[in-house]
Amino acid sequence: MQNNLLNKNEVGVFALGGLGEVGKNMYCIEYQDEIIIIDSGILFPDDSLLGIDYVINDYTYLIENQSKIKALIISHGHEDHIGAIPYLLRQVHIPKIYANGMAIGLIRNKMKENKGLRANLIEFQEYEKLVLGKLSVSFYRTNHSIPDSFGIVVHTPEGVIIHSGDFKFDFTPTGPDANYQRMAELGKKGVLLLLSDSTNSELAGFTKSEKTVASSIKDIFTKIEGRAIVATFASNVHRVQQIIEASVATNRKVAAYGRSMLKTLEVGSEMGYIKAPPGTLIDPNHIKRYKPEEITIVCTGSQGEPLAALSRIAAGTHRQIKITPGDTVIFSSSPIPGNQLGVGKTINMLFRRGANVITNSPLTDTHTSGHAGAEELKLLLKLLKPKFFMPIHGEYRMLKIHAQIGHDCGVRKGNSFVMDNGDVLAVTRKSARPAGKVQAGTVYVDGTGIGDIGNIVIRDRKILSEDGLLSTIVTINSETLEVIGKPVIISRGFIYMRDHEALTAEISEKVKQIVERKIKQTKKLNINILKREITKQIKDFVQGKTERNPMIMPVIMSVN
Amino acid sequence: MQNNLLNKNEVGVFALGGLGEVGKNMYCIEYQDEIIIIDSGILFPDDSLLGIDYVINDYTYLIENQSKIKALIISHGHEDHIGAIPYLLRQVHIPKIYANGMAIGLIRNKMKENKGLRANLIEFQEYEKLVLGKLSVSFYRTNHSIPDSFGIVVHTPEGVIIHSGDFKFDFTPTGPDANYQRMAELGKKGVLLLLSDSTNSELAGFTKSEKTVASSIKDIFTKIEGRAIVATFASNVHRVQQIIEASVATNRKVAAYGRSMLKTLEVGSEMGYIKAPPGTLIDPNHIKRYKPEEITIVCTGSQGEPLAALSRIAAGTHRQIKITPGDTVIFSSSPIPGNQLGVGKTINMLFRRGANVITNSPLTDTHTSGHAGAEELKLLLKLLKPKFFMPIHGEYRMLKIHAQIGHDCGVRKGNSFVMDNGDVLAVTRKSARPAGKVQAGTVYVDGTGIGDIGNIVIRDRKILSEDGLLSTIVTINSETLEVIGKPVIISRGFIYMRDHEALTAEISEKVKQIVERKIKQTKKLNINILKREITKQIKDFVQGKTERNPMIMPVIMSVN
Repeated sequence: MQNNLLNKNEVGVFALGGLGEVGKNMYCIEYQDEIIIIDSGILFPDDSLLGIDYVINDYTYLIENQSKIKALIISHGHEDHIGAIPYLLRQVHIPKIYANGMAIGLIRNKMKENKGLRANLIEFQEYEKLVLGKLSVSFYRTNHSIPDSFGIVVHTPEGVIIHSGDFKFDFTPTGPDANYQRMAELGKKGVLLLLSDSTNSELAGFTKSEKTVASSIKDIFTKIEGRAIVATFASNVHRVQQIIEASVATNRKVAAYGRSMLKTLEVGSEMGYIKAPPGTLIDPNHIKRYKPEEITIVCTGSQGEPLAALSRIAAGTHRQIKITPGDTVIFSSSPIPGNQLGVGKTINMLFRRGANVITNSPLTDTHTSGHAGAEELKLLLKLLKPKFFMPIHGEYRMLKIHAQIGHDCGVRKGNSFVMDNGDVLAVTRKSARPAGKVQAGTVYVDGTGIGDIGNIVIRDRKILSEDGLLSTIVTINSETLEVIGKPVIISRGFIYMRDHEALTAEISEKVKQIVERKIKQTKKLNINILKREITKQIKDFVQGKTERNPMIMPVIMSVN
Repeated sequence: MQNNLLNKNEVGVFALGGLGEVGKNMYCIEYQDEIIIIDSGILFPDDSLLGIDYVINDYTYLIENQSKIKALIISHGHEDHIGAIPYLLRQVHIPKIYANGMAIGLIRNKMKENKGLRANLIEFQEYEKLVLGKLSVSFYRTNHSIPDSFGIVVHTPEGVIIHSGDFKFDFTPTGPDANYQRMAELGKKGVLLLLSDSTNSELAGFTKSEKTVASSIKDIFTKIEGRAIVATFASNVHRVQQIIEASVATNRKVAAYGRSMLKTLEVGSEMGYIKAPPGTLIDPNHIKRYKPEEITIVCTGSQGEPLAALSRIAAGTHRQIKITPGDTVIFSSSPIPGNQLGVGKTINMLFRRGANVITNSPLTDTHTSGHAGAEELKLLLKLLKPKFFMPIHGEYRMLKIHAQIGHDCGVRKGNSFVMDNGDVLAVTRKSARPAGKVQAGTVYVDGTGIGDIGNIVIRDRKILSEDGLLSTIVTINSETLEVIGKPVIISRGFIYMRDHEALTAEISEKVKQIVERKIKQTKKLNINILKREITKQIKDFVQGKTERNPMIMPVIMSVN
């Protein structure tokens, strides 16, 4: 390990992503010359990362310790756990990727989209134990908002380390039960360290069951008289299946819209999670052949994403679906923080077009979270009884609150560790200590560029977004050092220049004076000094005139 | 009225702002040659209006009908009801502005900041009736999150029109009661038309009382051992007073931070709403003279606004306050939609610095809304029993849901009107009909500029924010039509050009070719054609290479 952070008998546990954030999950367990990686996800950037498509992790540590890597283990198929696999494979040799069920299907799809990349993808079995050297890995099934989610059990010479995966406890799930017996058994034998999902640690109580949601949706279907348009997370295959079953029960055909929804139906059908009597799922182009009360539309766009199906339906730009009065739109979802405004706008547009809109609330129960609330987190802690505890998968406050929940449930003070990406926890059967830091960080993906956008570019975009840009272009005769003609002033996103000819002329004149004065002073053409001087003076001048701070972009063209 | 929209006996009712949005409230009641305006607010722009400071209304209709304007009546002192008064006064002559209590104090402050502007500001009395021609106006007190909020009663020859103001029903308020008797009496005599606040129409049930919040805050103060740092809306004077009283009861001194919080204390003290035993309010510079358990800090920043006091405290950049373990930060607020991420970031930073953080939840009760929930909206409808109903003050879905609540409470189908800004409702004692549209719209305020930023500039800022800008500068000899030197390529917010010298060189070469080919073809220097050609081809070229779409800004310099 870098800088010899670990003693020989210590197991190192650290995240390259997933701590202090919800996204780009990647946890590593290192023992002597072996590393096991759990998950390789992306993070969807918030609005402050202007124009960035995804954020991934800095893989330097893995590149430098490539020979130690035994396997990548995937807990489940959500993008924040599998989305970065193609990026990882381009930089690091991963001998084996183990995954199960839906995750296998979704990773295969990803590999098809990234031709030229090869992955040694192996399906693990629920009850098998993978011996990967001195470390072994086994699994237990959990409940989550995508089928085939697992807790990962890493057996080390010092003891058992458990990664909870993303989980909740659903006592009446629509898929298989979580494996309570296995969890209790692990707890009885002794768990050295638990890494557990903190996403909903702020939420008091238990989350609702998927069955409650299924029954609410069916109730709504029986009451409405026109089309049912249901927007939900495409990856929530069990939910989509419940929507299909509610449709069958109320004599509706189902048409699906949105690229990721169609992918879900495809992979879900292959896996046997999506089942419908023949003729239930219809061609999206054929909905007009049925009466409104015979139609269910299931689609993407529950987060107000501008290009998703529901957003286009709401905006009136969807090719196949136009809202007509009598339509009922059901949000089988809750807005993720940051998306409330977008979702609100979508709902306003739907109402304007005459639809009725039903959102999730304690009265409607059209959605439930896939992440454990505080009481469920306590149940896991009670089943597993870990000696040491590291809250993972959450922003700092979620981790901190989860650590407190750990203490409330019997983890001793001093035995829980709220850490940052890169922080290494060194554990033995008797001890746990922070053991320093390995390289961890964020890499921006924008278009085809990976890591070519840094904070300077983001900062520039921020300034451009607020006050735009003002460019001053001066041509100078490099021999006579005279300014040729009038400096040209161009702006974008600042003010509409055609309406401000006087200001433009003033700026142009001022730039000319600045340049002439400076050249007279220095008696030579130093382009950098001229640019600095123009930027400084024009910035002040424009701010005084307009109280705005556009980015100043000075250009000096020298000709002779 | 414009285009003679109204018959002689009809009263015209319309909004210039406030319908389809929460903000820039401005409602007009017009009868023959008289117009009464209710409120003149600003709207705080959401993130899509990049760089815009405020949004105000288009006042064209008022400018064109200036002679009819009798008065501007202010319902209460929130910025979305008074914030645009200075902008309005610059464009329209308003003979009289009537307001009461806090609103008077806050408008006076505004006038001080806008030297050169004059307002004929008159304090109305709670029980007086203002005769303003054929129209008269009276008032009834309501509960809201700022003292001195009123419902506005406009007496017209055709009947009584009521504007609810912003309101809730608080049966145990911290200030005076709402005037239930007056509302019931108006209902008994007959209300022709009700315009009512729709902000919380989506919220089932009743909102909590301010007394509940006051008692929760006091409970928290008794339990915590270090400093209490409370962030709340500065304008919520009653809340601030409750925080002071809880501090007195637990032997704490109070120090206030944030410009608007200090203004609230000043105006609130003048008005008698802020009262504290001598020595309770201390100089912000003196907090170090007391033990942590003797200090309450009350501050702005409850919405995560980057420059507000709490945000600077959280970021560690506040001059006077540094977080130390033992501090408890209490959010006496809820995040307004769109602000959740910012608030979340602030909380993360506070936790990182060692503070405990308490936010509003059903378990903590540290905040309540100032706007009526669905059951309170029903109570107002039952007290006033309006014949016609126009939901106001809300986004479209809120208005629509409020209209349904109206029907549930006895407003006949066909008698409720969900309208847009500018839509005129013509009412007589017997009838109500949509009567066309007057000019209404949005005007952006950015720095000193009012209305000089249009949608082109906003669109440019949007593009710049996502992919930045690429400028190509070509110098051409206007006589020989030859390109002089290599075209210069500059970018901002695109990619870091120093790392992409090859791409830069390729683009430069390509620009040169485009220009030379085009000139060869046309045999003259047509700058617009050249610019169009460069933009088109370079856009495609860059997108092909990078999958990004920076704004292309071509510049042609011609010299001889």
